[in-house]
Amino acid sequence: MRFPTSRELDGSDAMNPDPDYSAAYVVLRTDDGYAGHGFAFTIGRGNDVQTGAIAALEPYVVGRDAEDLGALYKELVHDSQLRWLGPEKGVMHMAISAVVNALWDLKARRAGRPLWLLLAEMSPEEIVGLVDFRYLSDAMTPDEALQILKNGEKGKRERIEHLEKVGYPAYTTSPGWLGYDDDKLRRLCREALDQGFGQIKLKVGADLADDLRRLAVAREVCGSDYPIAVDANQRWDVAEAIAWVTALKPFTPHWVEEPTSPDDVLGHAAIAEGIRPVPVATGEHVQNRVVFKQLLQAGAISYLQIDATRVGGVNENLAILLLAARFGVPVCPHAGGVGLCELVRHLSMFDYVAVTGTMENRVIEYVDHLHEHFTDPVVIENGRYRAPSAPGFSSELRAESIAAHTYPGGDVWRNA
Amino acid sequence: MRFPTSRELDGSDAMNPDPDYSAAYVVLRTDDGYAGHGFAFTIGRGNDVQTGAIAALEPYVVGRDAEDLGALYKELVHDSQLRWLGPEKGVMHMAISAVVNALWDLKARRAGRPLWLLLAEMSPEEIVGLVDFRYLSDAMTPDEALQILKNGEKGKRERIEHLEKVGYPAYTTSPGWLGYDDDKLRRLCREALDQGFGQIKLKVGADLADDLRRLAVAREVCGSDYPIAVDANQRWDVAEAIAWVTALKPFTPHWVEEPTSPDDVLGHAAIAEGIRPVPVATGEHVQNRVVFKQLLQAGAISYLQIDATRVGGVNENLAILLLAARFGVPVCPHAGGVGLCELVRHLSMFDYVAVTGTMENRVIEYVDHLHEHFTDPVVIENGRYRAPSAPGFSSELRAESIAAHTYPGGDVWRNA
Repeated sequence: MRFPTSRELDGSDAMNPDPDYSAAYVVLRTDDGYAGHGFAFTIGRGNDVQTGAIAALEPYVVGRDAEDLGALYKELVHDSQLRWLGPEKGVMHMAISAVVNALWDLKARRAGRPLWLLLAEMSPEEIVGLVDFRYLSDAMTPDEALQILKNGEKGKRERIEHLEKVGYPAYTTSPGWLGYDDDKLRRLCREALDQGFGQIKLKVGADLADDLRRLAVAREVCGSDYPIAVDANQRWDVAEAIAWVTALKPFTPHWVEEPTSPDDVLGHAAIAEGIRPVPVATGEHVQNRVVFKQLLQAGAISYLQIDATRVGGVNENLAILLLAARFGVPVCPHAGGVGLCELVRHLSMFDYVAVTGTMENRVIEYVDHLHEHFTDPVVIENGRYRAPSAPGFSSELRAESIAAHTYPGGDVWRNA
Repeated sequence: MRFPTSRELDGSDAMNPDPDYSAAYVVLRTDDGYAGHGFAFTIGRGNDVQTGAIAALEPYVVGRDAEDLGALYKELVHDSQLRWLGPEKGVMHMAISAVVNALWDLKARRAGRPLWLLLAEMSPEEIVGLVDFRYLSDAMTPDEALQILKNGEKGKRERIEHLEKVGYPAYTTSPGWLGYDDDKLRRLCREALDQGFGQIKLKVGADLADDLRRLAVAREVCGSDYPIAVDANQRWDVAEAIAWVTALKPFTPHWVEEPTSPDDVLGHAAIAEGIRPVPVATGEHVQNRVVFKQLLQAGAISYLQIDATRVGGVNENLAILLLAARFGVPVCPHAGGVGLCELVRHLSMFDYVAVTGTMENRVIEYVDHLHEHFTDPVVIENGRYRAPSAPGFSSELRAESIAAHTYPGGDVWRNA
């Protein structure tokens, strides 16, 4: 599925000037009539490569028990021949993510629960059984993870009720895309405030003079204490990041996101040191739990940004939530794209209810794109994500949207 | 192309019990009648995913100038939509590697030079122009790389002559596969000595008692001073690696290869510290120059093992050779697989002639598999790689081999 977002410059940033937001989409069906939906998010060309990688997983999944998702997940990531293509990174890992998330959608539908609640009602032992601890034991053992989850049992019921009442805090990236002029930026900042968002984010990194001007516009509209994060989308080398962010310091960025390569743990650590007290955030392109482990061990990040479809699906995100809790670093998910808001809210809500017990200093990204294509779209009220109540992982696209956006045969593309 | 290597347990190790060595193969043709060959090495399932990723690069390459490989390489790795699938890692990066290597094969054939000599005859400025310095400047600037290459100009002509006379030292992994019994191990160790190899390597990490027994056998045959490296193929967590290697210390391993996840820079550094003085080697699964940079910055490796088809082809390997030189770490390439010996010898020979000027403490892996399928196969004499003289990158498979091993239609598979 491809959405022609490049036509309006929605989603433009310093590294991605013309994305067509896309989804390599998979549906798994059981004999008793259920279907689970999953996808990998891409930005256009290459979505077909991603689709091919998902198709290659068919023999691993068809005919299998759809309930024991710890065993099946570990089989997928440990298969030696597929593993050679990563290991646990890039196209093949995102394909596994799509399939694993579809399995979780299926399981939650069968259980009649939204995913966050299904997970929250599992025992600490069951959750630990879903996690692959390989390469993690120098940072977190299964026993330590179990203890985190056991601590999370206290007050769980009250937190579920509280969450269902007040929702989870969101921030919006909608004002901040690089392709927008200052008037549009000013208007969207005002709208963000009016809609009750407690934070916004601006893309930076293409041109320093532009960034300073755009930050001044945003500060003027939002006031001096309002949290404004900035996002460089991997644009800089280490020294350049430190110099550029130092120039932005008068505008007190709430965090600096993706200052450099997502692979560069030591680079992030050097930048964090060099721009103190401005906090560093990253994660949307971090390939797996092993890199997140190191970012935490190195003290390189103050905010950890999980992505729902890049690492190995729900199972690996459970490992990452637990790692973040162990290191006391708040998780603020990356969202936007196609359906990422729909998915990550489940993970943050599970984190609140069953892992960390707090929403303090935590926000889920919100971008107002493409939600109308989903059967269980996010609902934002007064700048907060409402807790979803429909069974599943909210990962299903509407049938009409699928028909229109299939590439290249769908109406949207045939008429282009 | 797939080769049914799993039938004989050739290539079996602690993580890869049943590989069918495979190549996603690409041929690029020019209007004036030249063809360049390249491939990504995989171990079976998933080779079709890799082939699909290479096919997705067709629009980037067809119709382009086949000479300016700095510009074309940077375009491929910087394309924002393809980059989203990595960035610079996994299936899409290996696809770029295959195409870039095919372009180099083409260029070297047109120039009538073996690749190592073509590179060695380029000016330092030309070589620097082929390298993508993004994310490297905290470890090596273009000026610093240029200086390394300028220093390498001195005595270049003499080194070319010396190399053509004596070749480049090799070590052999053939005795060490896990699937072999002790008699076969003993026999193959003797053969390695008889053939003049200056080093062997044994796979370890599946069972400690087995490893101790097999190392005792190898030491008995080879003697107490002969270099015997061991290779764990990513099997261990940090603490386990330190404990296991400590148990192997009485057998004085020449190096310990891939003790843990290739993504775990800090883990490698902790292991290197914990097993001193046993040196750590890694690289065959290291995804790109950014991770190599960090392994060097962290002092995590004593030997750097480039792979010819995992990172972004010749261009990114030039960056890695220069980084290794800057940090004074010897490069000992990973080889074996399908055609990796054929390819990496060119890179090590360029390193000797134009970068470091030495073969001291450096060896290229050699495995005696599948060379008969190549039109310009490696020649080993007295445990050393002879310098190739045929124009190109030695990456062309023989037409009969292609016909027989195409999967699933080739004879080898139709009759299986």
